[in-house]
Amino acid sequence: MSTRMSVAELNAFLETDFPQIHTGGRSFVVEAAGPMTARVRMAYHQRHLRPGGTISGPAMFALADLSLYIAILAQIGPVALAVTTNLNINFLRKPEPRDLIGECRLLKLGKRLAVGEVAILSEGRDDLVAHATGCYSIPPV
Amino acid sequence: MSTRMSVAELNAFLETDFPQIHTGGRSFVVEAAGPMTARVRMAYHQRHLRPGGTISGPAMFALADLSLYIAILAQIGPVALAVTTNLNINFLRKPEPRDLIGECRLLKLGKRLAVGEVAILSEGRDDLVAHATGCYSIPPV
Amino acid sequence: MSTRMSVAELNAFLETDFPQIHTGGRSFVVEAAGPMTARVRMAYHQRHLRPGGTISGPAMFALADLSLYIAILAQIGPVALAVTTNLNINFLRKPEPRDLIGECRLLKLGKRLAVGEVAILSEGRDDLVAHATGCYSIPPV
Amino acid sequence: MSTRMSVAELNAFLETDFPQIHTGGRSFVVEAAGPMTARVRMAYHQRHLRPGGTISGPAMFALADLSLYIAILAQIGPVALAVTTNLNINFLRKPEPRDLIGECRLLKLGKRLAVGEVAILSEGRDDLVAHATGCYSIPPV
Repeated sequence: MSTRMSVAELNAFLETDFPQIHTGGRSFVVEAAGPMTARVRMAYHQRHLRPGGTISGPAMFALADLSLYIAILAQIGPVALAVTTNLNINFLRKPEPRDLIGECRLLKLGKRLAVGEVAILSEGRDDLVAHATGCYSIPPV
Repeated sequence: MSTRMSVAELNAFLETDFPQIHTGGRSFVVEAAGPMTARVRMAYHQRHLRPGGTISGPAMFALADLSLYIAILAQIGPVALAVTTNLNINFLRKPEPRDLIGECRLLKLGKRLAVGEVAILSEGRDDLVAHATGCYSIPPV
Repeated sequence: MSTRMSVAELNAFLETDFPQIHTGGRSFVVEAAGPMTARVRMAYHQRHLRPGGTISGPAMFALADLSLYIAILAQIGPVALAVTTNLNINFLRKPEPRDLIGECRLLKLGKRLAVGEVAILSEGRDDLVAHATGCYSIPPV
Repeated sequence: MSTRMSVAELNAFLETDFPQIHTGGRSFVVEAAGPMTARVRMAYHQRHLRPGGTISGPAMFALADLSLYIAILAQIGPVALAVTTNLNINFLRKPEPRDLIGECRLLKLGKRLAVGEVAILSEGRDDLVAHATGCYSIPPV
């Protein structure tokens, strides 16, 4: 099972179809996309912060959701308008104020539903700061 | 069980302790806080949008998380540094580009954990656009 | 929006199509089914217990899952083979060794997905012992 | 970080402290426990079945919950009475009527909370049939 979109195509797709995620300053970059996997970086940016210099829950949610979306897109191509139906996130440790990495692995890619998990890590650290599982609905072709 | 913070005190607390949520323009306002309940409004703002004019998942997540936080704060007061440990959200319908309301009800308020549910509605509509349940850890006094 | 199956029809359906849930002794009974709602009783039974006389997590999960299934069946009728895709449950208080009631409310009933929440209560008590939200996939007709 | 309980000790603990899980016939066996991991087998048994010969959701929930509990117990020892506070499960494929394996990995083991994920597989197959994440509350010593 090879991917239908390259990393460059995925970043170009975000640029043209999701310019909103760059509001307030460019931060999200697709770094890798393989069979049923994807890696997305959320560069450190002041707008992601919470009191105490830690990164906010909504910013980590955004990274988890986007990582899952990119992993699906890489598999099925830019034709489909997939939407999140469910996302469950566990916050494990307070992230330091540095880049976060979302590592997504698809657990199932069906005709109607895709399910995946996302590990969220601080750059250069091994411990997870958060972990999410989510489900996307894939519309009929 | 009465609340320890009034609506005015809750909004003032956000102003001084969470100025980040107002980054890019004021949008979140506490509207009500009763025993084990709270209502928070997320005013329509361009930065919450997604392609097609709908409101983004991360923006709805932020509203759910904040509504839960406010309901807890209203009960235990501004002393404690509560943090989200888990949040599960189901996206039900695409919200129109208008204000969203988060209606939170605490299901449990223990010494160490608080659990609640949040219904997210479009202003003036009865159908839910999303529904979340979440858990906060309450640190020892 | 009226229901397509009566309480008697729902119980008869369980009898013929889900005899397994009665393994070890009859315990689950549909008590009510209205528009987008259902109530299912799990009668106290030794096989649901955990050490200390409390009721087990898997037993509460089974009640939550069944309540959701019954609420969907009441709406769409016995024709469809709906399956659980996701279930998230929060355990709030240790239930005493008595009947549990699952009160389900559907939050969305689409063509492909149904989402609902289930409050689980001990008979005769107001406090929730658990709360679940779940998603069923509804196969094409 | 080594484990405090061996596989034999974990199985003996289940025998004496959780005899209920063997009600209706022995089915659950701890197979492995390493640092922050555990593997539990749920042997094929008629009481786990659903119509069509597939394995029921509550049975898979029980396996996920137990795998997580065993992984925690292996780390902290049999002294503590840990209880599930949240469990989220995604059902991915209909399992065939054969043994299921729960592979647990702890994502966080704090003083008050432990969080882990569990992959559920059919024996001899690579595809996941379900995936769960859950949280246990660990009582003060």
